[in-house]
Amino acid sequence: MPSHYHNFTNSLPWLILFLEAVFIVFFYFSDYDEAMTSISYPDFQDVNHMVIFGFGFFLAFLKRYGFSSIGFNLLIIVLGVQCSVLIEELLLFLPDREIEDDMKRLTKATLSLTAVVISTGAVLGKINPVQLSVMTVVEMVAFRMSRWIHTTFLQVSDNISMMHVHLFGAYFGLAASSRFSEPLPGSEKNANTPKSDLLSMLGTVFLWVFWPSFNSVLAEDKSIVICNTYFALAVSTVTAFMLSALTTKDGKFKMTHIHSAVLAGGVAVGYAAPIIDYPWIAMILGLLASVIAILGSYCLPRCLNPVLKIHDTSGVHFTFGLPSMLGALAHIVLLVIQNWTDTPSLHLWVTIYIWAFFLTMDVALITGFITGIILNFKLFKTIPVSKYFEDQLYWEVSFNVKLIVWEYVGHLVALDEEL
Amino acid sequence: MPSHYHNFTNSLPWLILFLEAVFIVFFYFSDYDEAMTSISYPDFQDVNHMVIFGFGFFLAFLKRYGFSSIGFNLLIIVLGVQCSVLIEELLLFLPDREIEDDMKRLTKATLSLTAVVISTGAVLGKINPVQLSVMTVVEMVAFRMSRWIHTTFLQVSDNISMMHVHLFGAYFGLAASSRFSEPLPGSEKNANTPKSDLLSMLGTVFLWVFWPSFNSVLAEDKSIVICNTYFALAVSTVTAFMLSALTTKDGKFKMTHIHSAVLAGGVAVGYAAPIIDYPWIAMILGLLASVIAILGSYCLPRCLNPVLKIHDTSGVHFTFGLPSMLGALAHIVLLVIQNWTDTPSLHLWVTIYIWAFFLTMDVALITGFITGIILNFKLFKTIPVSKYFEDQLYWEVSFNVKLIVWEYVGHLVALDEEL
Amino acid sequence: MPSHYHNFTNSLPWLILFLEAVFIVFFYFSDYDEAMTSISYPDFQDVNHMVIFGFGFFLAFLKRYGFSSIGFNLLIIVLGVQCSVLIEELLLFLPDREIEDDMKRLTKATLSLTAVVISTGAVLGKINPVQLSVMTVVEMVAFRMSRWIHTTFLQVSDNISMMHVHLFGAYFGLAASSRFSEPLPGSEKNANTPKSDLLSMLGTVFLWVFWPSFNSVLAEDKSIVICNTYFALAVSTVTAFMLSALTTKDGKFKMTHIHSAVLAGGVAVGYAAPIIDYPWIAMILGLLASVIAILGSYCLPRCLNPVLKIHDTSGVHFTFGLPSMLGALAHIVLLVIQNWTDTPSLHLWVTIYIWAFFLTMDVALITGFITGIILNFKLFKTIPVSKYFEDQLYWEVSFNVKLIVWEYVGHLVALDEEL
Repeated sequence: MPSHYHNFTNSLPWLILFLEAVFIVFFYFSDYDEAMTSISYPDFQDVNHMVIFGFGFFLAFLKRYGFSSIGFNLLIIVLGVQCSVLIEELLLFLPDREIEDDMKRLTKATLSLTAVVISTGAVLGKINPVQLSVMTVVEMVAFRMSRWIHTTFLQVSDNISMMHVHLFGAYFGLAASSRFSEPLPGSEKNANTPKSDLLSMLGTVFLWVFWPSFNSVLAEDKSIVICNTYFALAVSTVTAFMLSALTTKDGKFKMTHIHSAVLAGGVAVGYAAPIIDYPWIAMILGLLASVIAILGSYCLPRCLNPVLKIHDTSGVHFTFGLPSMLGALAHIVLLVIQNWTDTPSLHLWVTIYIWAFFLTMDVALITGFITGIILNFKLFKTIPVSKYFEDQLYWEVSFNVKLIVWEYVGHLVALDEEL
Repeated sequence: MPSHYHNFTNSLPWLILFLEAVFIVFFYFSDYDEAMTSISYPDFQDVNHMVIFGFGFFLAFLKRYGFSSIGFNLLIIVLGVQCSVLIEELLLFLPDREIEDDMKRLTKATLSLTAVVISTGAVLGKINPVQLSVMTVVEMVAFRMSRWIHTTFLQVSDNISMMHVHLFGAYFGLAASSRFSEPLPGSEKNANTPKSDLLSMLGTVFLWVFWPSFNSVLAEDKSIVICNTYFALAVSTVTAFMLSALTTKDGKFKMTHIHSAVLAGGVAVGYAAPIIDYPWIAMILGLLASVIAILGSYCLPRCLNPVLKIHDTSGVHFTFGLPSMLGALAHIVLLVIQNWTDTPSLHLWVTIYIWAFFLTMDVALITGFITGIILNFKLFKTIPVSKYFEDQLYWEVSFNVKLIVWEYVGHLVALDEEL
Repeated sequence: MPSHYHNFTNSLPWLILFLEAVFIVFFYFSDYDEAMTSISYPDFQDVNHMVIFGFGFFLAFLKRYGFSSIGFNLLIIVLGVQCSVLIEELLLFLPDREIEDDMKRLTKATLSLTAVVISTGAVLGKINPVQLSVMTVVEMVAFRMSRWIHTTFLQVSDNISMMHVHLFGAYFGLAASSRFSEPLPGSEKNANTPKSDLLSMLGTVFLWVFWPSFNSVLAEDKSIVICNTYFALAVSTVTAFMLSALTTKDGKFKMTHIHSAVLAGGVAVGYAAPIIDYPWIAMILGLLASVIAILGSYCLPRCLNPVLKIHDTSGVHFTFGLPSMLGALAHIVLLVIQNWTDTPSLHLWVTIYIWAFFLTMDVALITGFITGIILNFKLFKTIPVSKYFEDQLYWEVSFNVKLIVWEYVGHLVALDEEL
């Protein structure tokens, strides 16, 4: 392999060493707070497990990119969480900030990281670890800034603000992705195999099971959020199977449909879950989210992406972006229906949530686009298109022809011994 | 592929759309109750995780049926849980029903679904998703009816009644399975490969770890149930390894033995766990359960199944059926030993539990048999025997010869570049 | 296969039957205590899940030894837990023992089992199940003895004493390993494939996520231990990626580096976690642990192991041994820094912890060495070197050439049908 291909690997160790050194220096001024904890360890653990294990395997659907999907996911999460905790520390210097205990800070950091993980999905296989580390830090800062405006100027609650994480992650990722070269047409390297699909299904089922924890972790009335999320997920799963069979030519199911649409209900119901009083509303929302996800997976790669020159590796636009937009809309509609008698306060809240939505979108698209431009500077040694979706570029993979032949001979010998 | 093979896939979307529409309409009349919750979210989560993730991978042992095992498992669970919650709502119209909170209702629904999942094991690979969806709804109704008689007429506690779930599931599945054609002799499609065995082991270990949660979730004194279940599982694991080595010709272990027998102790101890006061009793029970499971796996496919023309794909008869019978028997024996001084009350309880056992068996066998007959109506487009155990019938699987050849060439090229 | 190879499998069933009979007889004298429980079920469950599921898959990195890694791990854990609970019962006959509830006893037993699992890593693939069962019982007794001296004579707290488990496990395993023949040079059977690496990564990520539970389960102030462990793990993950890229020739990552070094921080911080007041200290410790693990993985197999004739299959020396030594040292250094004004008490504590450390090392090395000698008696039918790292020696594996050919033909047929 020509030397300029792996030049970037020479800069990665120094970049993350630098980042880590900065983190440790800043953490020097931080200590553990005695504040009463409002988040229990199991709550944190569910979210942590979900983000590291669930999303890691969820993204492992590319046949030759499993090591990188799972490994780099872990790397960006630990970088991002430290970065996020530090940003919280720095924000304490602003006036009127209440002190949060460490468990809550870690939990919020992990929740925020979902944005980065989703963005990674859009550029998966096309971004090298150096670019990924830079993107993580930039995106954490941008998302925190957006949330800071939410809670300070718009009086959006922390929980609702955090639920914009899917929206932010998806559109940040898409905007960044538009600056990366598209993979060669006809390349089969970004295909999935049954084996990689099973791994990804493992991650998907994990995320499915833990999604109620994700939506409820910052909520006040956890029980109602959990039930609403469960019902929304259930209906979106049924709808995913239904629409997958309807939209393929033989009436067969498509694994990628199932992967993306079963989670759509959980994403969409995130905003409104605390104020939905009847399960059927959550169910309708789950149904719509799944419909949007599957239609999106059908239309976007054919219509929108070629026009905007976006290549969205794991389909974050229809898996997280569209359902999240639907959820934000549903939240506002529900507010209007529930409070239409109380016009002044209703007007205020609707304005606030619409502002919060557009603010998140704008910050995500603008910072994502700028990040995409910066990441494609020569400095970051972009990967040549022919090397996309390859574990072998980053990992010492032992899988080679000699081994295959050896394995085959090994089995012949083993058989011989048995006979 | 001739068109009549995939006709059924055309009816599936409409069937589940119809079911889902019914669910949503009925849920329209339901709202969240304010009742105090007696089941915590982590308790529900353990059971949910176990049924969706654990059983999904537990059933993924067929080499070409992994997608269907995991995917359809998720589908029937979400259909079944909604169906089960609705049945509970309808039962509220009966007099003297106490209102349960939503978390408890969801938990019980998930526990009940175990019956369907176990039944699925008996007909795995031979049943299409349309039949599976119908079976789920019918079985949920039948099992709820059986439990309703338990709690209303026999005064069996909710917890003990729920522990009949393995018994019901196994015999319902076997009765239904007797109406399905047997796979072609000599076909190797229902074989397992080391890869699929590992996936299934993943599911088995998951179930093993979570089994104490399953048995204790509705129990009053959780701690004793957890310990008894743990010890029973531990001894049945040791026994499984011991007997597996004794019953194979080379003294080697057989993965299918381990899969089925390590869980037998947990199944058997379910009924009696709250009244076992000494760990050694749970241990003996675990030992016997494992012995029965392994002997069953040796004898049943050779002696009983050919006579009754039953083909039990994942061996639910010896994995869940026989250990569950043993557990019910052990429960009665323990009651007799513990209360032999108090004859009148003892007599009453023994009668009640014997009735509950036979009632469950009868309802399971009769409704299972009828369901089996109905499912084989032409309406449901049964799968031809030659297409059993094939993911490709339901899923767009990308695994084909072209890809294999391409992969091989790809590695040659990769090697060439490296040299 | 010549008959003397599988002779040992004839003795395994009788050995574990004997052990299980002894356990059940002793358990006959045991009943459940009414003592208030201090360990909640979720705490126990986390540790249980981690040891059975996490370590099982963590050790599944050998390409032909997956069944044995996961299966035998489950077997030795259930044997070891019963053995450990029994030893606790027997220790109650000593004067001045306080009674512990069953959940605490099970939790401690599971924690102690980590020692056995780590030792297994050193002799993985070279030890047969008979030897493994004997080793489990001997090691449980030796480790309990070492812990008993800690708590009785040295007044070390239970929590700190338990944290010596990694140290004990690693050096016991290494000492035992020195008595086993080394695998043939040039054999590729102990290589890993991408598939087995992914399975092992699954286990590693699981362990990573649950490590804070492991360190905090016996601690008094759980919150601080959890945060310190999280930060140590985070930094050791970053360092692992950094050093892995620096130490390989192309600047690529090596999966084995990641496997071993991401956990090093969690191991090292175990001792001192309750007394670390600032996150940056935990972070520095995580960094150092990861550096030691990666340097160890580079130097030990080249320098130390050939001299001592040790073959350490899964690298427990640098994964658990060295980080644990670092942790013990850091604990003492931190004590000195925090209490340097209070000289007499400081002197006492430092002496105690140094004694505890050397005692653990000595007991581990001596009993490990003796166990290694005993296990290589002819009685235990050691495996011939040519049969190392083979599932086929213990399991009925269906993977053979006929099947491969059949599969290939099957795909050709499937393709033919599709065209």
